[in-house]
Amino acid sequence: MQKKGELVSFRPDIKVVDCTIRDGGLVNNFEFTDEFVRDLYQTNIKSGLDYMEFGYKASKDMFDVNKFGKWKFCNDQDIIDIVGDNDTDLKISVMADVGRTDFKRDITDKANSPIDLVRTATYINTIPAALEIVEYCKNKGYETSINIMAVSKSNDSDLDDALELIGKSCVDTIYIVDSYGSLYPEQMRRLAAKYLECGEKYNKKIGIHAHNNQQLAFANTIETLTMGVSYLDSTVSSMGRGAGNCPTELLLGFLKNPKYNITPVLKFIEEHINKLKAEGVVWGYDIPYLLTGRLNQHPRDAIQFTADKRTDYADFFQYLYDKEAF
Amino acid sequence: MQKKGELVSFRPDIKVVDCTIRDGGLVNNFEFTDEFVRDLYQTNIKSGLDYMEFGYKASKDMFDVNKFGKWKFCNDQDIIDIVGDNDTDLKISVMADVGRTDFKRDITDKANSPIDLVRTATYINTIPAALEIVEYCKNKGYETSINIMAVSKSNDSDLDDALELIGKSCVDTIYIVDSYGSLYPEQMRRLAAKYLECGEKYNKKIGIHAHNNQQLAFANTIETLTMGVSYLDSTVSSMGRGAGNCPTELLLGFLKNPKYNITPVLKFIEEHINKLKAEGVVWGYDIPYLLTGRLNQHPRDAIQFTADKRTDYADFFQYLYDKEAF
Repeated sequence: MQKKGELVSFRPDIKVVDCTIRDGGLVNNFEFTDEFVRDLYQTNIKSGLDYMEFGYKASKDMFDVNKFGKWKFCNDQDIIDIVGDNDTDLKISVMADVGRTDFKRDITDKANSPIDLVRTATYINTIPAALEIVEYCKNKGYETSINIMAVSKSNDSDLDDALELIGKSCVDTIYIVDSYGSLYPEQMRRLAAKYLECGEKYNKKIGIHAHNNQQLAFANTIETLTMGVSYLDSTVSSMGRGAGNCPTELLLGFLKNPKYNITPVLKFIEEHINKLKAEGVVWGYDIPYLLTGRLNQHPRDAIQFTADKRTDYADFFQYLYDKEAF
Repeated sequence: MQKKGELVSFRPDIKVVDCTIRDGGLVNNFEFTDEFVRDLYQTNIKSGLDYMEFGYKASKDMFDVNKFGKWKFCNDQDIIDIVGDNDTDLKISVMADVGRTDFKRDITDKANSPIDLVRTATYINTIPAALEIVEYCKNKGYETSINIMAVSKSNDSDLDDALELIGKSCVDTIYIVDSYGSLYPEQMRRLAAKYLECGEKYNKKIGIHAHNNQQLAFANTIETLTMGVSYLDSTVSSMGRGAGNCPTELLLGFLKNPKYNITPVLKFIEEHINKLKAEGVVWGYDIPYLLTGRLNQHPRDAIQFTADKRTDYADFFQYLYDKEAF
């Protein structure tokens, strides 16, 4: 596959999607202060980012609104309280998880909503349900994406079938998601080639959402973008579940489009991220996440290991290995 | 350039070189306890590593032996006190810096020394001096390498000339060294292709020593190894100057040769590295190192910024940028 663009130039089709509140919310139960969210919104505007994902459209029947911060639910009014009429170039995104959203009740006409993009997260075996959400949202006037999670667990022929099905739908963007942070750049490039082939055939854009279990989130993002992937998820200081995501500050250091500006992100880290860490909110690369990533497992055991402040890494590795193998 | 090997197989020519004491010594002034060094030696044996670098052969005229730990000087006897007659498959390495070593006084016949490999670190403008050390050491019976530092600052034609000169020498291995952690995988692959071409022409092995300023040390190491680079530097928990190096635990997670074993490294981290960090020894990826790496600068300003416990990242970025540009 032909390389797209050079290191000294830039591609105008690149879009950076800030997922700090949405993926970071998995770390602190979405308990962000309004000041944090408002400053991040201003930071994203000043940094030239393309999308800001505010959180999930989670079902209020399935999740108690009193037990989570408001960005688990992303009421339109809560977003409006932050962005006003959002008269900026920054678009607003939310995520709906298949099986965890009342999309018909909670997602209204685009004309009445501050939201621009609805991203649907799905496992490979629930793609018809994801397509139902996508078609609904598309008809309501939104941009849409399908994010196929845990692709490192899918086999090639299922993935081919899934991409064919999604390609024929009305979705705008298809995401490669390395949920477990287990994929090496070599594997990521193979996946990107497959997704991009589908994208060319059906006129879809391709995105990447990486996790940093093996310190490869940034590398995998820039390696696939070089091939033509154009929607790039990142979070400030990699804030996100477990080992976190591709750090926005590294990604902006790589991108050459003069509209991107790293300085506001650096200020946001100084003012907000360091404080969050000092308060004890924990995420980012660490040995337990390397181990689940290497074994291509969900990070939940590593999150628990970290929360328990355990350091018996060798025993933990043996436990994970046995769980997988025997 | 043809890909060498597959993800599911292994290449027997791969050698992993543990640089924890040598590069890590730059962080703690080489003040390791004997217990630390002895346990690391045992760890490296159990993990199947190929080389352990004990430190520098620094000139005692230029550096006061009372102001550094002993691994800055690596007396043969100090190594023997740790390894005995080293009746193992783990080879012993030391580094000599051009212009900072009394190699004729301090490096004796291999027959009387526990050392197997002498690595010579040089900038591109001191290669004749490096070759003098290499020839001396080769004649004394040692394996040798030349490590061309700060290659991200060299221009292509100088590097071509340098590789030609080194190719014609008696050196065994030539190292790509990303001293400033500024190189992206795409650039690293271009450099590796150049070095490997020289290696094929002159029958030299090629090595890589990466720094983690942009969280790319592991990615750059595995990307170039896939092309044929075979000497891979790593350190436990990436311990090394500034942002540190390619973490041994990530590298062993990638390598498929059954002789490599991650578990002893995990135990070493639990027993020694966590303690070192709790004692306040600081290294590893952080915002200031990202900024010097991105600007292709020596990490010394970032090391000072970190030591001063500053967090005004945006001001620091402006300072670095102005220093470079104006």
